[in-house]
Amino acid sequence: MADLLPPEQVRPLLDEFFQQYLPITQYLNMRSYEYTGDSFSLAIDLAPSINDKLTAFGGSLYCVSVMNCWGMVYLQGRQRGINPNMVVAHAEIDYLAPVDDEIIVATCHAPDDADWEGFFESFHNRGKARAKVSSTIMCKGKEAVRFNGQYAIIGMND
Amino acid sequence: MADLLPPEQVRPLLDEFFQQYLPITQYLNMRSYEYTGDSFSLAIDLAPSINDKLTAFGGSLYCVSVMNCWGMVYLQGRQRGINPNMVVAHAEIDYLAPVDDEIIVATCHAPDDADWEGFFESFHNRGKARAKVSSTIMCKGKEAVRFNGQYAIIGMND
Repeated sequence: MADLLPPEQVRPLLDEFFQQYLPITQYLNMRSYEYTGDSFSLAIDLAPSINDKLTAFGGSLYCVSVMNCWGMVYLQGRQRGINPNMVVAHAEIDYLAPVDDEIIVATCHAPDDADWEGFFESFHNRGKARAKVSSTIMCKGKEAVRFNGQYAIIGMND
Repeated sequence: MADLLPPEQVRPLLDEFFQQYLPITQYLNMRSYEYTGDSFSLAIDLAPSINDKLTAFGGSLYCVSVMNCWGMVYLQGRQRGINPNMVVAHAEIDYLAPVDDEIIVATCHAPDDADWEGFFESFHNRGKARAKVSSTIMCKGKEAVRFNGQYAIIGMND
């Protein structure tokens, strides 16, 4: 557990990753919002994602959710000096209420029993690892989107 | 079953809908590809959806899939003189292989026992209706993405 880099030090690495490798994040104005190590929030703007009902397009809500959970695993890795090459393998999403906030924030809480050390150690030993990660978007005090994703580390960058 | 408008006559209505109401479709260059009444294909370009692995971002693959199925129901409605106001309520997606075609096409086949008349009649009688619709993205001859969505008609436009 030693030698963890501070959350605020690694958070900008995700925004740099977005700028360098994922042009759609610039269209969506996707950016990290808060990272504590226990939770991670990722934001997009409503405007580029507006739909015919003047609420957020369900595909955009998926995009911020899938990268919220991806980013959680990525940042956990970066805190440990690991730059993981990750893919999403499966995801499910429930749309519970419309989202019409100007700034849309997806939040991922690490489970209380999250074992990030074991996860990255498994990757180190077996060359692969899988994680199930969940995310939520709140709007007007209500849970509006619930997302569950399964991610696989398939290698290491750098 | 009488008075169905021809598929090729209603197909441009979806592209007009995209241009008018969903700006993200212009970023993705999302456009209808083929509509026969029994199947519907929707395309995006790889370039705006490129990721760090030089394949398509999983969120973009979700966007074209979710609108492929949405578009299938929408076009079925337009063939019957109905302009449905629809939302996606739940979706699941499996990423089976990377997608790196320059033009990415999601295809939705109506089930053999599809009962579109009953579906729109249910909406007419009860003011709402739900449909489960599936979509696939092929790449290099293999199924690369499998999508299942649940959609609800919540009203009528016009």
